[in-house]
Amino acid sequence: MYLARVVGTVVSTRKEPTTEGLRFMLIRQCGPNGEPDGATLVAADAVGSGVGEVVLYASGSAARQTTLTDGRPVDAVIMGIVDEVELGGDAKYCKGDAE
Amino acid sequence: MYLARVVGTVVSTRKEPTTEGLRFMLIRQCGPNGEPDGATLVAADAVGSGVGEVVLYASGSAARQTTLTDGRPVDAVIMGIVDEVELGGDAKYCKGDAE
Amino acid sequence: MYLARVVGTVVSTRKEPTTEGLRFMLIRQCGPNGEPDGATLVAADAVGSGVGEVVLYASGSAARQTTLTDGRPVDAVIMGIVDEVELGGDAKYCKGDAE
Amino acid sequence: MYLARVVGTVVSTRKEPTTEGLRFMLIRQCGPNGEPDGATLVAADAVGSGVGEVVLYASGSAARQTTLTDGRPVDAVIMGIVDEVELGGDAKYCKGDAE
Amino acid sequence: MYLARVVGTVVSTRKEPTTEGLRFMLIRQCGPNGEPDGATLVAADAVGSGVGEVVLYASGSAARQTTLTDGRPVDAVIMGIVDEVELGGDAKYCKGDAE
Repeated sequence: MYLARVVGTVVSTRKEPTTEGLRFMLIRQCGPNGEPDGATLVAADAVGSGVGEVVLYASGSAARQTTLTDGRPVDAVIMGIVDEVELGGDAKYCKGDAE
Repeated sequence: MYLARVVGTVVSTRKEPTTEGLRFMLIRQCGPNGEPDGATLVAADAVGSGVGEVVLYASGSAARQTTLTDGRPVDAVIMGIVDEVELGGDAKYCKGDAE
Repeated sequence: MYLARVVGTVVSTRKEPTTEGLRFMLIRQCGPNGEPDGATLVAADAVGSGVGEVVLYASGSAARQTTLTDGRPVDAVIMGIVDEVELGGDAKYCKGDAE
Repeated sequence: MYLARVVGTVVSTRKEPTTEGLRFMLIRQCGPNGEPDGATLVAADAVGSGVGEVVLYASGSAARQTTLTDGRPVDAVIMGIVDEVELGGDAKYCKGDAE
Repeated sequence: MYLARVVGTVVSTRKEPTTEGLRFMLIRQCGPNGEPDGATLVAADAVGSGVGEVVLYASGSAARQTTLTDGRPVDAVIMGIVDEVELGGDAKYCKGDAE
């Protein structure tokens, strides 16, 4: 999994019928502090995330191992909202502080 | 999933028999504005996309989770045509404007 | 899928028994004109390709979705020989011309 | 698999229910000496690893081939704690020495 | 698949029980001549390879398509020992010569 920050949303009306009802979030990979760092991609949301939150996302076939995404053509899913990242004994990111 | 713009097509007549009837689109990864940004690859089309459109594509085993691509040797599928990308509260891309 | 040109072959006699009979081609990713561009890798051949041809290959679990490669430890398969690549309304590559 | 050093932990309370009970470790890819080298990512822990240890992790669908992670949306798992790395006839890393 | 040279070994005693008995080889991607070129990673050995040999390895779910690795958390497997690489009509690597 990678850390990422939710930075936006993507709307698609003409799409694979099985993706109906999924929310597609624009996310950007981030480092332990939540600072932008890496690729921008689109992930299905399985946990009710919102713009600005730091999340964990899983890629590949793992992205279909949720009730929402099972059997659907999605290759990335947000599967956790991050509360805290600890690195080298320090809390680098805390959800309450960072927003 | 990644955002990409459809930039062309690929024709192959000698190919795996199970890929018969699939349309192979040449796509280029793009950023939230639809501007070129990243790799150029080939994806099967599951939604009737056309050259110039910004689309969402899925990679890996996810690319076989559509009726068209099930059980076929394809590793990328266009599974949505993008209407709007919102980033930081602004609509960065709107289908009608951008073409 | 990616475009690639077949640039050579790889011979292995001590190998997984299930890969017996597969042809392993050395391929190099290429752009829409067939010009070298990207990684060199090894793919199983499912379509009778030859050195010099521009091909489409699929990676990951997709590489096992052919009769030849089903259930075998291969992660890349040549699944089409390219006749034409059209980009921006122009034929960038035509099989007859390019060889 | 890649070598990585465990550098921290990630806490998430709002997450996919099936990930309940998994420990998410922040890991950084490392070279044969255990020196930092490459991406920082998050892996589920299947072997009771601790911060500071050099580990082996597996990605993709392999990450679900443990009792702990089976059927869960995780794409990276720590599946071994490294005791020794030998390169070119020399022990480049030994667990006891390096900590 | 990619070409790689076996450059070392990795020892792990505390590990996923299902990986018991597998040999973990440190491999470095190489070019058609066998020269180092690319990432260093760890692969399970399915063919009895040794340090110094040039091999073919498969990644992802393909790595579980051998009797040794079936159902185990490994994402890379050495599935062939390379005898010869031919590129542009020339033998760039021959097993006997190169060692």
